[in-house]
Amino acid sequence: MVRVDYRKLFDMVEQCYEKVGVSEEEAKLITTIQLQADQRGVHSHGIAALGRYVGLFERGEMKKAEEHEVLEDRGAVEVWDALRSNGMVTAARAMQAAIDKAKQYGVGAVGVKHANHLGAGAYYSLMAKDQGMIGVALSTGGPTMAPWGGAEKAIGNNPLAMSVPANEVYPLTLDMAQSVVAYGRVMNLKKQGEKEIPAGWGLDRNGLPTTDINEFYSVMPTGAYKGFGSSLMIDVLAGLLIEGGVGAKADDDAEGCSFFMLAFDVAHFTDPEAFRERVDDRVRELKAVRPAANSRGIFMPGEIEEIKHAASLEKVEVIPENLQDANDVAIRLGLQPVAAE
Amino acid sequence: MVRVDYRKLFDMVEQCYEKVGVSEEEAKLITTIQLQADQRGVHSHGIAALGRYVGLFERGEMKKAEEHEVLEDRGAVEVWDALRSNGMVTAARAMQAAIDKAKQYGVGAVGVKHANHLGAGAYYSLMAKDQGMIGVALSTGGPTMAPWGGAEKAIGNNPLAMSVPANEVYPLTLDMAQSVVAYGRVMNLKKQGEKEIPAGWGLDRNGLPTTDINEFYSVMPTGAYKGFGSSLMIDVLAGLLIEGGVGAKADDDAEGCSFFMLAFDVAHFTDPEAFRERVDDRVRELKAVRPAANSRGIFMPGEIEEIKHAASLEKVEVIPENLQDANDVAIRLGLQPVAAE
Repeated sequence: MVRVDYRKLFDMVEQCYEKVGVSEEEAKLITTIQLQADQRGVHSHGIAALGRYVGLFERGEMKKAEEHEVLEDRGAVEVWDALRSNGMVTAARAMQAAIDKAKQYGVGAVGVKHANHLGAGAYYSLMAKDQGMIGVALSTGGPTMAPWGGAEKAIGNNPLAMSVPANEVYPLTLDMAQSVVAYGRVMNLKKQGEKEIPAGWGLDRNGLPTTDINEFYSVMPTGAYKGFGSSLMIDVLAGLLIEGGVGAKADDDAEGCSFFMLAFDVAHFTDPEAFRERVDDRVRELKAVRPAANSRGIFMPGEIEEIKHAASLEKVEVIPENLQDANDVAIRLGLQPVAAE
Repeated sequence: MVRVDYRKLFDMVEQCYEKVGVSEEEAKLITTIQLQADQRGVHSHGIAALGRYVGLFERGEMKKAEEHEVLEDRGAVEVWDALRSNGMVTAARAMQAAIDKAKQYGVGAVGVKHANHLGAGAYYSLMAKDQGMIGVALSTGGPTMAPWGGAEKAIGNNPLAMSVPANEVYPLTLDMAQSVVAYGRVMNLKKQGEKEIPAGWGLDRNGLPTTDINEFYSVMPTGAYKGFGSSLMIDVLAGLLIEGGVGAKADDDAEGCSFFMLAFDVAHFTDPEAFRERVDDRVRELKAVRPAANSRGIFMPGEIEEIKHAASLEKVEVIPENLQDANDVAIRLGLQPVAAE
C-alpha cells in the first residue's frame, strides 16, 4: 500500500473524466464513488477501474452524459432503461429515486436495466443511510459461479449491499457477493504467481473443489446451495423482474448488468431517533459479548470499512500498481500524475 | 418415515386445536401451515409443534383468537403489535396485508412485533407467489449464534424466505436460516446418540470450531462473518425497526419474535405473464448446465420441496416419533389417533 493526498488524487481522477468529455458534475460523482471504495479499503472497486472507464468513454461504449428512460412510474415503483450509461451515475440517481419514493410511501423500489458496473454497492446503500433510511442495492453480474450441482459458470456472484443508520456507533453496512471470495481476487493471486488457494474457495471445470489455482474455474457460493439460491433471487429482483441482463447477458459486451434499489423510510415505521438508539444498543450488546479464544475482535458489518474511511479523509491508501496505472492514464491525457508519499 | 392419510391427519390436528378453544377458521389455517411443512419435507416445522402449541393455548400463554393492534398504517407500510397471538395466524394475516399494500403501491411492508414462532417461512412467501407476487418473510429468533469473533450466543440464525412465481417450472422458494445447519438439527442428533458433527457446523463455548457433539454450543453462521451480518440485518428489519424482540428478547418467555413481511407486485414492474416466462427460461437455462462430476442433480431453490409437496397431497410422510406425539395429544383430548399406513 502507498498513501496519497486525497484531494490531489481526487482532482487528477476527476480531470481524467472531464478530459474525455464527462461533465464536471458527473466526473465529481464518479470520482467520489471510486475513491470512497479505496477509502473504505475495497480497492477492487476503487481507482483500479479508472483506465477501463476512460477507455469506455473514449471509444463511445459508455455515454459521456448519463441518461435513462423511465419505463414505469407507478406508486412506489420505477423501472428505468439506463441506455448503457455510466453505472455509477445511474445507480446513484436510481437510489435517490428510491429514497424519494420511500419518503412518500415508506418504501421505494427502482429497477434499472441495460446499465454498467456500479462499483462498490455500499456507496448507494449509504446514500439512503445518509438520509436516515435503510437502503438496499442489488446488482446482477456476468457469470462467475456454477448453479449448485453444475460444472459451468452460468450466474454472477451477485452483490447485495445494505446500510442502516445509527446514532453514536458506526452505521451498519453489509456489502457482500454471494460467493466465498471474489472471482477477481483469485485472478489477482494467479497474476501474482500464487499456486494454491484455500480449500472452499473454488471449483474446477468439472465442478469439483480445488486448491490448485491453475485448475480454478468458478467461485464457490457462500454456504453452498444457499449462496446459489441467494444469487438467483438477486437475478430475479434486479434482472428478470425488469427484463434486465442475468448470467452471460449481464456481461459488458451483452446487455450489461442491472440493478434493484430499495429504500425503507424509517420514519414511516417508528421514531427515527429512537430507532437509531436501538441500533446503538444492539451493536453495543453484540460487541460486549465475550470474545472467542481465537478472536481478532467482534466487528459489525461495515465497521472496519468505516474506521478505514474515517482515517482516509486527507490521505488515502491505494495499491501501488493501481496508482501507477491511474497515473499513466493521467499522463496520457496531458495531466500531472500524483506522487505517493 | 411413515405415511399417513393427509385428510385424516388434517382433521385430527384441526380438532385438537378446536378442542382447546381455537375457532374452526384459525384451527384450519394453523393445521394447513403445519402440515404444509411436513408435505414439503420440512418436518422440524410440521406436526412436531402440535403438542407445544396445544399446551400454549391450554395454559393461556397464546391467545386462542388472533388479534393485533395496528400501530402504524402509512402509505405502503404497516406496523402491528401481535399481542402474543398465534404466530402462524398473525404471520399469514400480516403477509396478506403486505400483499394488499403491494397491489396498491407496488411494494408493501408489514412489520409485526410481540408475535410467536411462525413455523416455516415459506408458507407466507408462497402466499405472495399464489397471488402473482414476489414475497419475502423475515423473522427474528432467540439466540443460537455468536456474533462473528464472539463466544456467546447473542443472535438468532434468523430465517429468510422468498418466493417467486413461475409459469411452467416450479416456483422458486429460498427458505434459509443464516447458519450452516439449524440448532435443532444438532440437538436432535444429540438425542439420537450421535457423538460427532461434521466440521463447519458448530462452535464450542470458547467460540472455537468443534466436531464433538457434546462440546457443541452455537451454530456456525453461513459464510462466517457474512451469515452473522445477514442475521443482524434481519434483526434490524424484523426487529429494531419496529421495536420488536431481537436476541434473548425474541425468546418465547421474553417479548417473542417479530416479523417483516414484504411483497412486490410484479404487475407494477412488468407484464406478469412475460415475467413468469422469463423465470421459466432462466430456470431451464440453469438446469441445462453440464452437471458437476459429483453432482446429484441441479435443483433450484424450493424445487425438491415442491416435488415432495406434489407427491404428498393424499398421503404425507411424517417422522414416526412426531406422529406418536401428535396422536398422544389427540388421545388426551378425547380424539381418535391416526394410524400409519
